[in-house]
Order: sequence, then C-alpha cells, then structure tokens
Amino acid sequence: MRQLTCEIIAIGTEILLGDIVNTNASHMARGLASIGVNTYHQQVVGDNPQRLKEALQEAYQHANVVITSGGLGPTEDDLSKETGAEFFGLPLEMNEKARAHIEAYMNRTRRTITENNWKQAMLPQGCIPLYNDNGTAPGFILDKDQRILIMLPGPPSEIVPMFDEQVIPYLKSFSGQVMVSRTLHICGIGESSVEDKLHDQMLAMKNPTLAPYAKEGIVDLRITAKAATEQEARTMIRPVEDQIRSMFGNYVFGADEDTLEGTVVNLLEKRGWKIATAESCTGGWVSGRIVSFPGASAVLEGALVTYSNEAKMEHLNVRKETLDAYGAVSEQTAREMAEGAAKAFHTETAVSTTGIAGPTGGSREKPVGTVCIGLYVNGKVSAKTVHFSRRRNSNRQLAAVQALNLLRLAILEEK
Amino acid sequence: MRQLTCEIIAIGTEILLGDIVNTNASHMARGLASIGVNTYHQQVVGDNPQRLKEALQEAYQHANVVITSGGLGPTEDDLSKETGAEFFGLPLEMNEKARAHIEAYMNRTRRTITENNWKQAMLPQGCIPLYNDNGTAPGFILDKDQRILIMLPGPPSEIVPMFDEQVIPYLKSFSGQVMVSRTLHICGIGESSVEDKLHDQMLAMKNPTLAPYAKEGIVDLRITAKAATEQEARTMIRPVEDQIRSMFGNYVFGADEDTLEGTVVNLLEKRGWKIATAESCTGGWVSGRIVSFPGASAVLEGALVTYSNEAKMEHLNVRKETLDAYGAVSEQTAREMAEGAAKAFHTETAVSTTGIAGPTGGSREKPVGTVCIGLYVNGKVSAKTVHFSRRRNSNRQLAAVQALNLLRLAILEEK
Repeated sequence: MRQLTCEIIAIGTEILLGDIVNTNASHMARGLASIGVNTYHQQVVGDNPQRLKEALQEAYQHANVVITSGGLGPTEDDLSKETGAEFFGLPLEMNEKARAHIEAYMNRTRRTITENNWKQAMLPQGCIPLYNDNGTAPGFILDKDQRILIMLPGPPSEIVPMFDEQVIPYLKSFSGQVMVSRTLHICGIGESSVEDKLHDQMLAMKNPTLAPYAKEGIVDLRITAKAATEQEARTMIRPVEDQIRSMFGNYVFGADEDTLEGTVVNLLEKRGWKIATAESCTGGWVSGRIVSFPGASAVLEGALVTYSNEAKMEHLNVRKETLDAYGAVSEQTAREMAEGAAKAFHTETAVSTTGIAGPTGGSREKPVGTVCIGLYVNGKVSAKTVHFSRRRNSNRQLAAVQALNLLRLAILEEK
Repeated sequence: MRQLTCEIIAIGTEILLGDIVNTNASHMARGLASIGVNTYHQQVVGDNPQRLKEALQEAYQHANVVITSGGLGPTEDDLSKETGAEFFGLPLEMNEKARAHIEAYMNRTRRTITENNWKQAMLPQGCIPLYNDNGTAPGFILDKDQRILIMLPGPPSEIVPMFDEQVIPYLKSFSGQVMVSRTLHICGIGESSVEDKLHDQMLAMKNPTLAPYAKEGIVDLRITAKAATEQEARTMIRPVEDQIRSMFGNYVFGADEDTLEGTVVNLLEKRGWKIATAESCTGGWVSGRIVSFPGASAVLEGALVTYSNEAKMEHLNVRKETLDAYGAVSEQTAREMAEGAAKAFHTETAVSTTGIAGPTGGSREKPVGTVCIGLYVNGKVSAKTVHFSRRRNSNRQLAAVQALNLLRLAILEEK
C-alpha cells in the first residue's frame, strides 16, 4: 500500500486560449476523489516541451502521481510522449501490445493504416500501454523511481473511458481503502443558513466529512466516508444523513442523481395527479425543466406562456378587474393564472409565475427581480412573492427553481 | 506601454475535487487572448493559504499579471484576499468605495447588512476596488513593483461581468496596440462544412486571423485584427466579414452580442408581427429562449406546451385523424400545431416542435432524436424533419435552436 498524491496537467494551447473548457480535469478529479487519491494542484500548459518539462518538475515536488491529458496525437505539435520519456531518461520503443491494438482498431473501423499510426505505438521503454477504443493514440503508465507518470489523449471521448476503465482500477490497487460519497440536495433555504446551522459540525468532522456546494438555488451537502469496504463506509454515512434529514426536513428533496424536477414528477405520479403550468417571466423554463425528466410525459398535461394581459385573460381566465386592480405581477394574478392553467388542462395541480425579470420594468414597490408564484394543488390555491437580485436570465432561472420547489412543498402537505 | 503576460489561478477545493468545472478560466483566457495578453500556464489550488502562496510565487516567475478566481466569500475558508495582501506585504484596510458599493447593493436587494458584509470591504492598501453588481464580495486590482495581482470572486454570475466590464478595459490600457475582434454567428450549416470551406484561408491568414468555434447548433467565426488604432483594425476586418457574409448568405444571423432569439425578435418587430409557439419535446425551451431577449414582450403573444394528444387537439385544434394517420411526431402534426398556435394567440407567425427526445420512444422509422418543426409565417404553413444524435436534453436544446433558425429563414423569405 502506497499513499498516492496526484497532480493533473492538461496540455493544450486551445485550453490556454479559452477555446475549450478543461472538462477532462474535472472528470479525472472527481474520479480520483472517489477512490481517495488526494489532489492539491492542477496545471494547464501549452503544446511546448520546455514548459511541459517545467510543469512536470513542479508537479513532482508535491505529488508522486502525475496524469497528463493531451498532446498524444500524430502531428508535429504533439510532443507529450517524447517529453515524458525524456523526463525519465527513457527511450521510446515500439510497444507490440499497443501496435496490435491499433491494428485491430483500424481494421474494425475500416481505415487504412499509415506510417503515422505505427509511430503512435512508440512508447517509453518499460511502460504499461493503455488501450484506446475510441481513437488511435494509446496512453501509458510509467512507474519508475517511486514516481508514476500517466499520459492520456486529449479528446474527452478517448480519455474518459480510458481513465475510468484502465487508470482508476490501476490506482485503486494501491489503496487498501474505499471512499464513498452521498450528496443530499436541499432547496428552499439559503446557502448561508445551511452553513450557519452546520458550520461547527463540518469543521469538527474528519471521517465522514461533510461539505456544502451551492448552485442556482439548490444547496448540496456531500457526506464522504473512507473505510475498508463499501458496506462499512455506507454504514458510517447513514447516521449523518439521518441527522441532516431531520434538521432540514422537507427542504431535502433528494440524494445523488435525484433532480428537483424528477422529484416533482415522481410525487405527482405516485398520487396519480397531472400538472399544468402558466408562465409569464420564466417564459417556458418551468415546463422546460419538467420535460427534462424522462418520465415527464406521464404527468405534464400542458403548459401556457401568457406574456400579454390579453393572453392571460383569454387562455387562463384571469379577470380584467384583477389585472387592473393589482397588476400583472401580483399574487392575485398569480393565483388566477394557476387556477386557470389547472382548468385549461383539467389537472389536479398547476404552478404559475409572473414577475419582473429585468433589466427594465421595475418600480419602487415591485423592483426588478420580484416574482409572484401561484400554486393550485388539489383545489387549494395559494401564492407567494419572492425576490431575486441577479440579471434577467439568472432571475428567471432562480424563479423556475423556486416555483418547482414551492409546488413540491405544497404537494407534500397534501397527504 | 508594458508587455503583459498573465497567469490564471483558480482557487477552490471544489475544482480540485471535480465538483465544478473551471469555466471561469476558459472565459478569462478567451478574454485575455482577445486583447493580445499572453498566457502560458494556468493553475488550480485548494482553499489553502500556503499552497496559494506557492502558486503565486510560481506564477510570478513567468508572468507579470496574476488573476485569481474564488476564495473572496465571507466564510472562514475564504482566505484569498489575506494571502494576496500578505504576499505583497500590505495590510488590509477598509475601502470606503467598496463599502459604499456593498451598502447600495444590500439596500437595492433589500437585505440586512451584517458584520460579515463590512469585512468584505476590507481590501489591500492602495488597491483599486472592483465592484460586484451580482453579489457582496468586491474584487480588486493591485499594481505594485511591476507586478499586477487581480483577485476576483468565484461564482460565474459575479466574475464574468466583473472581468468583462472592469478587468478587460484595465488591461487593455497597457497595450500600445489594439486588438479588435468581430464574431459572426452562423446557424443552419454544420461546423465541418464551415471549416471545409474556410480551412486553407484560415491557415494562411496572419492579421486579421480567422477562427471557428462551435456550440449547441451555432458556429461562430471570429475575425481578429491587430493595429495601432481601433479604426484601423475595423478597416482590416471589414473585407473579411464581407467575404464570409457573401459566402454563407442568410445562414449568418448576426455578429458579436447578437443572439439567435434576439435576431428573431427584431425581425418580427420590424414587420410589426407577433409570434406564438407550440411545443412538445422541447417543452417550453423555444419560448423560454425567446423570453431570454429583453425585448420579447413586444412580439411574444403566448406559447403552448401540448404534451398529450388531448392537449394538442383541445388547445391547438390538431385533428384526431392527423394524429391517428401520421402520429404525434410527424410533419403533418407539426404543421397543424403551428397553425393552431397562430390561431389561438392571433399572431402572424408561429413555430412548433414535436419529436422523440429520448432516451426511449424511438422506432425504426422515427429513431430517438427525430424532431419535426412546423412553421406558420404570414399565412404560409410548412414543416421540416431534423435528426439529432445526442442525449435527451441536448437533443431538445438543438431542436429549440433549429426551430428558431428555421423560423428566422422563413421570415426572411417574406420580404
């Protein structure tokens, strides 16, 4: 058993120019975290042998495993392999296993083998070749002088399976432990409130650990345990999960792969209820989110975007008197919109949004970011006003999340 | 005039763990490239003062500008500011301008100011504060001993406008040359076709340069010229733009800040026409996109999502015979949906989508990814079938883009 600390180096001028986003690094980082390999530093360098050499030197000062992505292609720019071999003082030589694999790949995809393809089978002496089922460039693992160098190709379609299927099992074999994570999703209370309640506990916890992540109106809490077996790790996670669930109650809407829209769809399906939406400022993003969940067709009857007052009156039966007295952005209008949507599509539930997304249209009483959300659940109508302070489309996205969440909470109240 | 070389350091344990993708780095890298600032190296470190200090040391060996993202929040983890000030041997002190800006932001968003908020106005002595219109943490620029340190907050909604509106103009002022870019947006032909037509030319061009970027159904072509004045650079760009426009005709839908939905809204407004949408598989993403453009209320009358056959018949007058004979996913149904939407909302134009987004529901004749798009423009009805081969929500997004683009092309044909 060897304690591994890993550093990821992405090689590619196109990343330095911002033309592509370095998703390879986040994919590999997540994989490394899942098997308990620490990473404290990442780098990006261009296709330049001297800078790659410096990056390797820098990396091995802190880490004993370096994983690179990119620069293994057949063109003259691609010098990662040469630089890696030179760094370890090793020659490149024909790797027969890699050669056979390339030949099989080319035959399978019915392509002609060129001189360049054979060059790709030249790998550092003594390395373990990594097979590429989605391209011609093999990767490799070199373990020498207590340092491991793993060089992988750049295209996500090639590196992702190579990393998941060949690199992760290799690195796992060094560890006697497994690491298991479970993420709880919370919606309806702010990140700072969640952190306030858990702050001292989070600092004190060592194994399992507890960490919060916020994104677009949703707070994630990740519990991570390290143990000898997966079973044991899950047993350590359970009491922490129970405690969080009892602390935040219905605000916890799911775990791991669960989504807010999926949770709403499942709740409706269980009750045999259908849903309709009526949107103004969100413009279709509430229904669009519901449809993101593959089971949506079982519950979504229809949706209306009524942007003009005329459309609100004609299609949702919002009363002219309501619009005149309270305005389009009001809880009264939101209530009538929700009720109107449920009637129009003959559903047991409906949710509506009407608000001022910005950048203009705000007033003193109703500033930009004011959104009224209406709910219709099994005959009961209600409404709530929420405020956001971002830009137009960010406000709209947060409003869609809040609308779905308020609907979820209202459904839960109907046993 | 000072030649700038910049290094980007992202600070955040969540990036090292792979929980978030480092999109801030690519956004900033693209911005730096656009004004001719070189970057040869990027780093990622966790929320750890010692490692950040090492990263800064490393960065200033090659660069004279360092931009960091993250770690400016109000919690104890967030130590970027302290580490940055210490690195330059400067104390933190109350920055009155930053303080006033935070106060205005809190009042505008109707929140209570806490002690933590004032702490965020503590910045390194002598720095230039950067205002945050989307959060409470200000950023700053420190220019000392021929080294520039720029520290920015982590959330994309905060860092992107701060970087674009405050950092880029600041860095631009150091250059004796100006670099001007113009990006043409193309929709309706594939990336590889665009590249095929321009490949040799792109390789040959030095100033201006020409580079393609593809994202979600849209191909961008960026023309970049370097010259002594902006005027001169624009004069160099013009003939290249003219050539591309004559090569791709109506497929070019706009330039720079133009969006596909904004272009559609403007075309409609010019003609005094209104629009309605009727969506099935896209579930509200076509209307949601239209509403993303702030002027949408002038033209969008209403939108319907009709997921069930019943809703299609009741709200859009799609005939039962059509559904029985051709199915819900057919050009015939798409045509009736578009026509029905125009009738329901009394508009001159309408667009509809009906398709199989996946993961299930495909057949031999209509595989997953088949989407029929219906158009109603000034009394003329038409439909087209398109095919996508990605996952559910990626197919839905591409379908929404294609629907808007086909509508745009149909409007252009009506003089």
